[in-house]
Amino acid sequence: MVGNPTACVLVIGNEVLSGRTQDANIRFLATRLGELGIPVREVRVIPDVVETIVATVNEVRARFDHVFTTGGIGPTHDDITSECVAMAFGVPWEKHPEAWARMERHYKPGEFNAARQRMATMPRGASLIDNAVSIAPGFTIGNVHVMAGVPRIMQAMFDSLAPSLAGGPPIVSRAVHAQGVMEGRIAEGLAAIQAAHPALDLGSYPYYRAAGNGVAIVAKGNDPAEAEAAIAAVTVLMAGLGASPVQGEPPV
Amino acid sequence: MVGNPTACVLVIGNEVLSGRTQDANIRFLATRLGELGIPVREVRVIPDVVETIVATVNEVRARFDHVFTTGGIGPTHDDITSECVAMAFGVPWEKHPEAWARMERHYKPGEFNAARQRMATMPRGASLIDNAVSIAPGFTIGNVHVMAGVPRIMQAMFDSLAPSLAGGPPIVSRAVHAQGVMEGRIAEGLAAIQAAHPALDLGSYPYYRAAGNGVAIVAKGNDPAEAEAAIAAVTVLMAGLGASPVQGEPPV
Repeated sequence: MVGNPTACVLVIGNEVLSGRTQDANIRFLATRLGELGIPVREVRVIPDVVETIVATVNEVRARFDHVFTTGGIGPTHDDITSECVAMAFGVPWEKHPEAWARMERHYKPGEFNAARQRMATMPRGASLIDNAVSIAPGFTIGNVHVMAGVPRIMQAMFDSLAPSLAGGPPIVSRAVHAQGVMEGRIAEGLAAIQAAHPALDLGSYPYYRAAGNGVAIVAKGNDPAEAEAAIAAVTVLMAGLGASPVQGEPPV
Repeated sequence: MVGNPTACVLVIGNEVLSGRTQDANIRFLATRLGELGIPVREVRVIPDVVETIVATVNEVRARFDHVFTTGGIGPTHDDITSECVAMAFGVPWEKHPEAWARMERHYKPGEFNAARQRMATMPRGASLIDNAVSIAPGFTIGNVHVMAGVPRIMQAMFDSLAPSLAGGPPIVSRAVHAQGVMEGRIAEGLAAIQAAHPALDLGSYPYYRAAGNGVAIVAKGNDPAEAEAAIAAVTVLMAGLGASPVQGEPPV
């Protein structure tokens, strides 16, 4: 995964920071971007505060190949992502003719009011991300992709955006798990397997289920054969402790 | 909430960034810390990479009153949070006598092996956070609280830590919701209510349910009477549009 383009996800919204809302966007984006070969290397959840959004966008767009933001592009006073991205890029925040036209067509006469017009106001130079659910588009400027926070709308926007993203080799994943195995007993052997496969990320994840506790080992990387070789070695390690390893992740 | 102490949550683990694992710790900590009057102002999810962990810990411990980390304190090769925190503080990473004694008592003779001994190795000066679930403690050093990633263990550690945290006035929350109301129609009125209550955070959250779509408005702040006044004004605003507002959050 060393040569893959990288992604940062920026979740913008007080509702996640206050605990009101369980985020559902991080896992979706992490999974889909991994499949595209654009692994997520960092996530930040930040509040609806102008200075924080501007500074964070500028920091992460310089450090990662792609930035994906979710949240803050609706019509209400707490939706300030779009103008903050314009500030971050130092460009005017202005009427986007195509977004404006789409929304004007969508609303009845008189209903495309000032609040809704804010959703058709974007940083100069933005290109639209289609919204098949509720019209108001997201947008891309530079390497920053600005999407809605509502999961259903965000997912539709990502589906529309994905074909245009230049990915790297897909990240593949192989796993094995075994009940009754404790991390502390396989740690030494695992470390040796990781050392033998430096191009892989070998993760160790204990699980606690009604059917029994155990540990899952997951190998991630660009090369399926190498991931399978590492998992085969882990399987031998687990079996050597008297366990009965099963290929794949444990059932949910 | 202006004078409240602030918190940053640091989720450390490749498994959240890869989409393998749905994070369950952010919402728990955000909710509990809000109740303690220590609002979470930022969350970061970062990978198991030494330089990233060290740099991030040093950045956020300078910017926030408290930092809560989850993940990376188990016995395997990918558990590197503890030694990274020692590096961040510039102190030795060494045997913690009390943690060591607790774990030595817990394991059968010969089972407190090198991998498990790593879990009793901590930054010099760390004070323990009890682990009622699986013995191996977390720890606090300076304003950084280092906890497990497994939600059940993290929650037990937080319960043990919470009484020692000096909080501020609790963050209270009041809400109203109404079916059939669209954000674009109440946005202007909401902005005026927010402007009249600058000490509150007024959030607007559309919802999509089988029983009907609508919007929930949530007021958060330190003063229950002010939150109630703002929600009363929102209720009047919604009713003026012909809706039937209901106090509280919409049912899940």
